[in-house]
Amino acid sequence: MKIDRLRGFRDLYPEDMEPKDCFLQTAKSVARSFGYSMVDYPSIEPMELYTEKSGEELVGQTFSFTDRGGRRVTLLPEATPSVMRMITSRKDIPRPVRWFGIPKIWRYEEPQSGRLREHFQINADLFGPDSADADAEIISLASTILQRSGLEGKFEIRLNNRELMDQILKSSGVSQTGNALNLIDRFHKMEESEFIEAFSALSDSDSMVNAMVELLKAKMDVKRLAEVVAQKMPGLDMTTTIERIRRTVDIVSGYTGVLPVIDLSIVRGLSYYTGIVFEFVDSDGNFRSILGGGRYNKLSTLFSDQEIPAIGFGMGDVVVELMLRKNNMWKSNEPENSAYMISVNSTGFDECQNIARMLRENGFRTRVDLSGRSLTNQIRSASSSGYRFTLILGEIELKNREISIKDMKSGKQWNAPLNSPGFILESIRETLRRDNNRQN
Amino acid sequence: MKIDRLRGFRDLYPEDMEPKDCFLQTAKSVARSFGYSMVDYPSIEPMELYTEKSGEELVGQTFSFTDRGGRRVTLLPEATPSVMRMITSRKDIPRPVRWFGIPKIWRYEEPQSGRLREHFQINADLFGPDSADADAEIISLASTILQRSGLEGKFEIRLNNRELMDQILKSSGVSQTGNALNLIDRFHKMEESEFIEAFSALSDSDSMVNAMVELLKAKMDVKRLAEVVAQKMPGLDMTTTIERIRRTVDIVSGYTGVLPVIDLSIVRGLSYYTGIVFEFVDSDGNFRSILGGGRYNKLSTLFSDQEIPAIGFGMGDVVVELMLRKNNMWKSNEPENSAYMISVNSTGFDECQNIARMLRENGFRTRVDLSGRSLTNQIRSASSSGYRFTLILGEIELKNREISIKDMKSGKQWNAPLNSPGFILESIRETLRRDNNRQN
Repeated sequence: MKIDRLRGFRDLYPEDMEPKDCFLQTAKSVARSFGYSMVDYPSIEPMELYTEKSGEELVGQTFSFTDRGGRRVTLLPEATPSVMRMITSRKDIPRPVRWFGIPKIWRYEEPQSGRLREHFQINADLFGPDSADADAEIISLASTILQRSGLEGKFEIRLNNRELMDQILKSSGVSQTGNALNLIDRFHKMEESEFIEAFSALSDSDSMVNAMVELLKAKMDVKRLAEVVAQKMPGLDMTTTIERIRRTVDIVSGYTGVLPVIDLSIVRGLSYYTGIVFEFVDSDGNFRSILGGGRYNKLSTLFSDQEIPAIGFGMGDVVVELMLRKNNMWKSNEPENSAYMISVNSTGFDECQNIARMLRENGFRTRVDLSGRSLTNQIRSASSSGYRFTLILGEIELKNREISIKDMKSGKQWNAPLNSPGFILESIRETLRRDNNRQN
Repeated sequence: MKIDRLRGFRDLYPEDMEPKDCFLQTAKSVARSFGYSMVDYPSIEPMELYTEKSGEELVGQTFSFTDRGGRRVTLLPEATPSVMRMITSRKDIPRPVRWFGIPKIWRYEEPQSGRLREHFQINADLFGPDSADADAEIISLASTILQRSGLEGKFEIRLNNRELMDQILKSSGVSQTGNALNLIDRFHKMEESEFIEAFSALSDSDSMVNAMVELLKAKMDVKRLAEVVAQKMPGLDMTTTIERIRRTVDIVSGYTGVLPVIDLSIVRGLSYYTGIVFEFVDSDGNFRSILGGGRYNKLSTLFSDQEIPAIGFGMGDVVVELMLRKNNMWKSNEPENSAYMISVNSTGFDECQNIARMLRENGFRTRVDLSGRSLTNQIRSASSSGYRFTLILGEIELKNREISIKDMKSGKQWNAPLNSPGFILESIRETLRRDNNRQN
């Protein structure tokens, strides 16, 4: 009986998983280079962990069920609540705390391009400092992961600030800012007239509604933001907030070479953000947003009596994969130091073992042919394997206590004494070195 | 409100997760060195994938539920069925196929030492060849992962063969071999008298029951196995099977230096094994088994019309962690090339950014102090961070356009021109080189 996988899930074959792992390893390496340490948390959490924070709304899009012990549980729909539980239950960790993780995340949503029911998510969080410098560090980290993965120049950074939005909304005569933010979150997904109607219902001041629409459409630098706020929202003093945005933008653009754009339509759906919010998007506008994040200084108070300033982001692997594929950067690190070993009988096979072990210990990806087929057939397998070197123990070689080594790239072939693993290794390395020198 | 994690699950803080990731990376690196490629599969599968293979029995120990679409689904209790689905649904992949994966696995069992409700599992499978050489490769791979992780000499390899057991059981007058194997699987967990009673009920031949108990208690080499089979089960010709075991044992012990022991009580619970079965156990006998695996040549016929010879193993992370901790091998690769950057004002912070980026790009783990506190306080943080070098941009340094660099290991301190990142990097590297030379 053929049993298919569930809809919205993936079978990742080597041609998909090896490049994906390569990207995830780059992310880990960049996060560690910024001084972030890896953490992990359960994939199943008590459902209250999400209802407490986001209300029942998010839970409707999760995989939730009652376990055999009668507990309502949820498969991780995001990492932040778990990380928050971890940080609040340990008071001994010196701050700032820099953590990252790469959990799988599940959402029960309609699968579509860039959105699946299961994906990997790179999460990073910085706890302790509440400053433009801290905001800039987390954005620079996200940016560097993409740049080092091959997406330099392919993405834009868009940011906004929740305090700024709160003030703008209040000065627009909106009292239910939560509802207004939810509406703004859908701004680009609805007709303008539809938005205006819905927003008018939330605002006391008709003239402000049109001003708001213009603001949401604009992509601004910080100077323009200051002008616009002064012009459209007279009487609103946002100097401190705008100064902090300016400094964040300056540090990020200095560090990454990417100038973040102010986009007031970026509010991020989740209700817990308190300061800066940001999204990274594909410059060509082909895909969904690459990642999102922001500052959430109050969330810790839901789980403990401490208020822990926090900022973080979550970067899914699905849109990044689409972008890497589009830019021909979807590859794994297939090593040049690889060897395919062929033998024609069990004596040869036994001899292969020692050499295979030596090569592997010296960093060579080494496959031993197990087919027991003819020399010709084995050589055919070696050719199609893509492995750089073929090492052959035929009857003649065995008789002469030699091994035949072939560089599949140049076609060059030589023999080495079977009892001298050092010589075998060195002759292969020498070939690779000469090749590298020629290329440089 | 404090929300605890679920019982049997783990919060992995950096001091736990970094060493764990180090072990998992070693496993990946060893698997790739054997020519195995990484795959991944959904964490949620249709429940039929498990009922089809193992009957309802295993499902009772899983996290299973009905999803929002009304489908009965199960969180991965093992990787084999998913991998089997993947291999049977692609006929274009040249064999042999060598795959590994590191999924999370869930079991709804009572948590205890070495057993949790969620764990990582290293899986490797070899599809295509059905030979002692193939059996030996997969066992050598598992062994090498443990050896490279620091457990050389700390584990034993125990193996058995399902065909051999079938024959022995039949010659013992047992017709329901499935039931007998399940009973043998629990041999070490029950009283001998209890076992004898239960086994007698399955066997026609009373004299064979005691012979069986003796066989199950013995740890044998292959020579002894042949003798024992000849003696206790006269008339049984197991020459071919024993020859294959002999060759597997020879190759494994030649490759790994570990001589596998024949242990007829190792049958592995799962019903799908057809040939060799094996377990690795802690030499001191303190823990549960480290890993288990075997040959399952018929399983593919449940999912397709092809019969694909297969052998594989699954190695959980829980017992390995216990063993690594016990042997003081539970550490992460804390790099010597790490730098902690301190600045006293925003001008200094901006200057730090360029140097931090340069250091990170050159492989240095680099943390920038974000506290905005006094120089003294920041230096205190630098000392306790464990980072090797502290780079200081105080007021004097900024005035002189210099940066002060301190080797926290030797206490040595020097200045470098702020505008010469190359010089800064080189002076740090030179210090590390001199240190390495001294140690060698």
